[in-house]
Amino acid sequence: MSTPATSHVDPNFIPIFGESLEMLRKVLLTEKAQPLIVSGSGTLGWDMMCNLIEPGDNVLVLNTGYFGDKFGECLEVYGANVTHLRAPIGSRPDRGAVREALASATKPYKLVVITHVDTSTGVLSNVRSIAEVVHEKSPSTLVVVDGVCSVGSEEIRFDQWGLDIVLTASQKALGCPPGLAILMVSQKALGVFNNRKTNVPSYYASWAKWLPIMQAYESRKGSYFATPAVQLIYALHTSLRQILTSGTMEQRFAAHLGASRGFKQKIRDLGLRQLPESDEFAANGMTAIWLPEGISVPDLLAALAKRGVQIAGGLHVDVATKYFRIGHMGISVTRKHLDVVYDALSAGLTELGYKH
Amino acid sequence: MSTPATSHVDPNFIPIFGESLEMLRKVLLTEKAQPLIVSGSGTLGWDMMCNLIEPGDNVLVLNTGYFGDKFGECLEVYGANVTHLRAPIGSRPDRGAVREALASATKPYKLVVITHVDTSTGVLSNVRSIAEVVHEKSPSTLVVVDGVCSVGSEEIRFDQWGLDIVLTASQKALGCPPGLAILMVSQKALGVFNNRKTNVPSYYASWAKWLPIMQAYESRKGSYFATPAVQLIYALHTSLRQILTSGTMEQRFAAHLGASRGFKQKIRDLGLRQLPESDEFAANGMTAIWLPEGISVPDLLAALAKRGVQIAGGLHVDVATKYFRIGHMGISVTRKHLDVVYDALSAGLTELGYKH
Repeated sequence: MSTPATSHVDPNFIPIFGESLEMLRKVLLTEKAQPLIVSGSGTLGWDMMCNLIEPGDNVLVLNTGYFGDKFGECLEVYGANVTHLRAPIGSRPDRGAVREALASATKPYKLVVITHVDTSTGVLSNVRSIAEVVHEKSPSTLVVVDGVCSVGSEEIRFDQWGLDIVLTASQKALGCPPGLAILMVSQKALGVFNNRKTNVPSYYASWAKWLPIMQAYESRKGSYFATPAVQLIYALHTSLRQILTSGTMEQRFAAHLGASRGFKQKIRDLGLRQLPESDEFAANGMTAIWLPEGISVPDLLAALAKRGVQIAGGLHVDVATKYFRIGHMGISVTRKHLDVVYDALSAGLTELGYKH
Repeated sequence: MSTPATSHVDPNFIPIFGESLEMLRKVLLTEKAQPLIVSGSGTLGWDMMCNLIEPGDNVLVLNTGYFGDKFGECLEVYGANVTHLRAPIGSRPDRGAVREALASATKPYKLVVITHVDTSTGVLSNVRSIAEVVHEKSPSTLVVVDGVCSVGSEEIRFDQWGLDIVLTASQKALGCPPGLAILMVSQKALGVFNNRKTNVPSYYASWAKWLPIMQAYESRKGSYFATPAVQLIYALHTSLRQILTSGTMEQRFAAHLGASRGFKQKIRDLGLRQLPESDEFAANGMTAIWLPEGISVPDLLAALAKRGVQIAGGLHVDVATKYFRIGHMGISVTRKHLDVVYDALSAGLTELGYKH
């Protein structure tokens, strides 16, 4: 991030952008999918995903919390008919429910959208299993994964699982500052885009603008549609290089799983309950925990803040004041930050009168 | 930019965002307009400007080069009927032409769009004078200024000139790295937005999403629609503070004017011609220069690069290979970089066989 002002067509920068695109493929375990790196928050990735939507298209959203609702809202702005398959807080739609929803569709869903980890509940969806059902029951349907809170911390095998879009942001488990929306798009999804009958009703978010730019940088040529966030791309390049040189993706998935399971067990030993029904249903990059009776979010946040630990309150509108969230991904896992967090949490709760 | 990872609702960050919004008003000399700071390239500002557009609206684009064309393209994506008032390369539409275009409109233009400095030609539009004509002849028309290449280096008086939108990006004369789209919106334009009969066909670019966020941060509360680019906002805060503490805006305008006029005179003394017809028509943050016969853009760029100076080739499609461009704004002006550039240019041209 401390890279001095550099032109986006500077011969030093062009390979940084090109290599970042290539490394993204390796992180997502894909050979031929098309990466897109665009200046913007992760939310911009939703608008970009909607390049696949034409008015009247049916979309099935597997809704496991706040982000499913918001994703649906974005799809509706672009004219999609959205059906939400909702699970109770802490749960997720199972294969049977998805199979039934696909079977009962009046016309095939153009997309099935899965929030891989809904940050509002900490629920982890089983992307592999859902994708399998979609491919079996509705082969024309594209599988879209919102991986904002999962890319870099949860197992994702883009090619092997037959995914069509994985979108994410720079600032979560990729470990880069915020400001980049990142998408990986399958060749099948590109084909659907190329067969649109209507124009994309956006200028900045249109793939038609960005695809030639990505292809240019990947072949080590500068190009221009909009000035890229040069320093952020330098930072992303560093993050991706760190991820890919610190071990295999399998090792990274295992490290997150191990750290998460260990932390979640300690949370249980402390007598606290989590939002996800089981560890199998729970994200490996975060933990969402119900507050003990009589302790409020602001009090707990303050108790941890004075111990140098920053955690988050609830986000799911129905229960926002009743739980809190702890992120543990990337550097937090490799540097054992979770031990510090656990000690601060335990001491903070005791200070606030919690007795196990 | 070296600020460590910080939550967008961290008590340290909230005032940084809030103060940045307030400082933007001071830089643009407005009391009550609404600033918007959004993660994205400057181009995103065009989509955001189109929050004022409903299908079928008439827009007059005062076209002084490449960016006028592209701006028009974006407006058309959102359903506007765009009329381009074009000037020859190096010139700009004058008051008479604008007056005539406004008078001959079958229905009033909803917007008149002015590229303050078209980077492709180095032409400076006379925003004050055009705004005056618009207010006189077509009072309901909103005045929109693309200030990507002008905010921070050219005189802009938002309130006094009666402007409705000025949009810019972080990386030009504001002197911050790229990655933020910045808009200033008048209360009149907000009124027009609030009276839209159709929904904005975008999620990420919709003012409806961003206005409450900006208002929250300005009243020193955290809020969430999309994760802001925290480090870039820290950098913008630093840039804006430097601008506002290094003198009055009048002094800043004068410094850019002085540096630019001096440099342009030296270019003339070197026997070179510029794209803009006169200094009055020329940007103060850049200079666009015709190549001498027999010298190519790549050769000149290379000759300067080896002297540590980075300049740009042409961008206007009609004449891209026939001229080059030199940026001089913000720190380049205050640190007298232009002397270094002039020496490198003069030596580079001589090396390539140019004789004055």
